[in-house]
Amino acid sequence: MDHEGSPPFRAVQPGFRWDGVAYMPYKQDGSAPFKDISRQVLFHEHDLNCELRYFEMDAGGYSTLERHEHAHAVMILRGSGQCLVGDEVRPVKPFDLVSIPSLAWHQFRATAGEPLGFLCMVNVLRDKPQLPSEEELAALKERPAIARFLEG
Amino acid sequence: MDHEGSPPFRAVQPGFRWDGVAYMPYKQDGSAPFKDISRQVLFHEHDLNCELRYFEMDAGGYSTLERHEHAHAVMILRGSGQCLVGDEVRPVKPFDLVSIPSLAWHQFRATAGEPLGFLCMVNVLRDKPQLPSEEELAALKERPAIARFLEG
Repeated sequence: MDHEGSPPFRAVQPGFRWDGVAYMPYKQDGSAPFKDISRQVLFHEHDLNCELRYFEMDAGGYSTLERHEHAHAVMILRGSGQCLVGDEVRPVKPFDLVSIPSLAWHQFRATAGEPLGFLCMVNVLRDKPQLPSEEELAALKERPAIARFLEG
Repeated sequence: MDHEGSPPFRAVQPGFRWDGVAYMPYKQDGSAPFKDISRQVLFHEHDLNCELRYFEMDAGGYSTLERHEHAHAVMILRGSGQCLVGDEVRPVKPFDLVSIPSLAWHQFRATAGEPLGFLCMVNVLRDKPQLPSEEELAALKERPAIARFLEG
């Protein structure tokens, strides 16, 4: 999905799709740690060494609970829901900013009966996400707000 | 304006301002090559080596007509107007994408009687913008659509 050499202008289409941008729903099976989420890579710029992606969850959907060395810089674009970063859970709405530092556990959830869509700026070269071990998950759930969040 | 170590959550405020983000109107005098434009650096991430900035023009305002080696990746967020990239002028609206390649002349104009705001992803380290010479400006204006655009 290399958009280097994208045409200068790519218009948005209804439903947060874009001309010339592939819509990539994540395949899920019974064991998938995410639900009803799609990805669109809006900019993949080798010169910039950064990507700008748009992720969207359907109502009730959620991203994978994960962490990694690389940082994420997020702006909510559509709908509302909740977000976990480190040990904090917060409601989020369009144009709110979320900074996910290195190795912070994080997850987005479309908990408000509507889709939740956000932009995510990230390095082109980055490490793979880590999933929590059972012990790490138990430690996260010791905080009641996080336990409630993870139960959706 | 180093937002490294930003808190995880920074909520948007009315009028496209953000908690903990400095609002920076560009100072202008009679000779300024821009009009009624402000900048807010939303993310300045050394780990990412990229910034995400929000620029906004008041109705009738415009950015500097310039070019540089570094590329820009833009998403319109607010209002509408017109944009020049290279030799193309196009109307733009929220969530449209604009890719500004290396050394392409570019300018944004809030020509629709309302503000025009956009996100711009850019490298932290970048070269300085170049302004057009009289000859370069004359060459741009040979295209009627660009001449009309530059006259506002």
